[in-house]
Amino acid sequence: MNDTYDFLIIGSGAAGLSAALYAGRYNLKTLVMIGPEFGGATMTAGEIWNYPGDLTGDTYTLMQNMRKQAEQNGAVLEEGFVEFLTRDGDLFIAHVAKSKGGAEYKTINAKTVLLATGAERRKLGLPNEKELSGRGIHYCVTCDGPVYNGKEVAIVGGGDASVKGVILMAQYAKKIYLLVRGDKMRAEPSNQERIKALGPKLEILMNTEVKELVGTKKLEKIVLSKEVNGSAELIVDGLFVEIGADPAVKLAKDVGAELDKLGYVAVDPTMHTNVSGFYSAGDTVNIFGPFKQTITSAAMGTVAATSAYDYIQKRTYAVGA
Amino acid sequence: MNDTYDFLIIGSGAAGLSAALYAGRYNLKTLVMIGPEFGGATMTAGEIWNYPGDLTGDTYTLMQNMRKQAEQNGAVLEEGFVEFLTRDGDLFIAHVAKSKGGAEYKTINAKTVLLATGAERRKLGLPNEKELSGRGIHYCVTCDGPVYNGKEVAIVGGGDASVKGVILMAQYAKKIYLLVRGDKMRAEPSNQERIKALGPKLEILMNTEVKELVGTKKLEKIVLSKEVNGSAELIVDGLFVEIGADPAVKLAKDVGAELDKLGYVAVDPTMHTNVSGFYSAGDTVNIFGPFKQTITSAAMGTVAATSAYDYIQKRTYAVGA
Repeated sequence: MNDTYDFLIIGSGAAGLSAALYAGRYNLKTLVMIGPEFGGATMTAGEIWNYPGDLTGDTYTLMQNMRKQAEQNGAVLEEGFVEFLTRDGDLFIAHVAKSKGGAEYKTINAKTVLLATGAERRKLGLPNEKELSGRGIHYCVTCDGPVYNGKEVAIVGGGDASVKGVILMAQYAKKIYLLVRGDKMRAEPSNQERIKALGPKLEILMNTEVKELVGTKKLEKIVLSKEVNGSAELIVDGLFVEIGADPAVKLAKDVGAELDKLGYVAVDPTMHTNVSGFYSAGDTVNIFGPFKQTITSAAMGTVAATSAYDYIQKRTYAVGA
Repeated sequence: MNDTYDFLIIGSGAAGLSAALYAGRYNLKTLVMIGPEFGGATMTAGEIWNYPGDLTGDTYTLMQNMRKQAEQNGAVLEEGFVEFLTRDGDLFIAHVAKSKGGAEYKTINAKTVLLATGAERRKLGLPNEKELSGRGIHYCVTCDGPVYNGKEVAIVGGGDASVKGVILMAQYAKKIYLLVRGDKMRAEPSNQERIKALGPKLEILMNTEVKELVGTKKLEKIVLSKEVNGSAELIVDGLFVEIGADPAVKLAKDVGAELDKLGYVAVDPTMHTNVSGFYSAGDTVNIFGPFKQTITSAAMGTVAATSAYDYIQKRTYAVGA
């Protein structure tokens, strides 16, 4: 039989790592399953200027600091992807693959689980999109932006993610088209002002959608819903899609945790779901509405760890055969 | 007529300063009234090892960083104490004194208000306590501990505040008595372990209360509820009371904001009270229960700022005569 952890944290973003820090301080035997990417949504943002107390703006350092705090307090971080969850008496059993979609190579037992798997980035849903992904089409400026040094790119979206993407991309690309579907941007005004300062390097196209992705081995051009400079075709070297994300709630469903109307994991203010010992925090839940930030995720993680600690203190465990 | 602020933040702890950071980014005209002490409860803690992302452990730097972030984003911080609040149409009018209990010297108008005044430290409620306060009796080890270098002190309380107080005091005092009323400490296990490592310098007295404070110009000794080493009298140079705090909700009552059963300001998950445009965050509210941390206060502040921004976007203001 495998070791049993007090607290299994699935996901290594701000929610998961902050939970690990607190769980370690509570002396819970704690494992963090890192998942597909270390550092969660914060890490993919590249820079962060609104995390209270941090003047560096550097997401890499911020997340590495959180990792160190978790480890300094005794939490263990492990590479791996939880494919599904089952139950054995009161215990949760995590079935772990080396990477997403891989074969199960071990199971992990846990008295309590925090689902902190964040959200998956939305796609355009166009033909060719999957084939050209990584070949001119990308979903993370921070990750793939530097490749487009001196090139021309388009960024899709009107929210903070796309606008922050523009700001970062301006360090690399010689020309950026920002394609906004509606007639209004949802990004923070201060971010909108920052991109206005970019001058002619940036062209903002409102009421504009991508209709077609043209290219075989590589993206060659995109077709827009309306003409720009005399043509609906726009030749770009790269297209970045920054249009939001959907919560990764699959593992919640595995154990019967309820979702709310919008598809997020339903939790009470202690981050507890309807399933005893099963918690969720960060971008998988919606308690603060569309406002989803590193600082709120971190706070939710600490609340979840405290709840798990209280829960474990109060009960003994019946372990199945 | 005075300038009208979009957002008046009352209090300069983690909740208030984080709200100011976000409000600045939303381009709200924002004023932070610092109140009796800059930095709130975090600052009085002296050290902090559980703020996700911060490895320094230094509360002074953490709070100064939050202040810089607020100011860098355009929020104004001002020394002053809001004595009471009134209304003028939809506006809130803050009546400001230079210090607590002082004469009103100006008023400030605001479209929205965040009450982030934290909580007041609890007293023992004994005769002599007020007279000897600052003369041997203290409520903040961080603030007043260094004075007791080489001396003998008692610390009252069984929660995290008292245990953290012990850890810090061990750097100064030659002997520490920790007086715990019940038979169990409520402090985090990891903190309890840290004080065990202090050895004979620390004596923990369970089931022990302070019954009497003896001294005229200065605390001379305390009388305990039971004998210790053959006497109920304990001669100490200083007594530190670390037994919790009560939320500072007076200004909420001024504008008719409802309190919950425990006396905290009642807020919804957007930090909105029942009074339109009036928010509260941090130790004045109880949405995460007794778990009140710098990280949760910071998160609540950012949520409140976002709510105030949304609220202001949606309405115009009727200003009274």
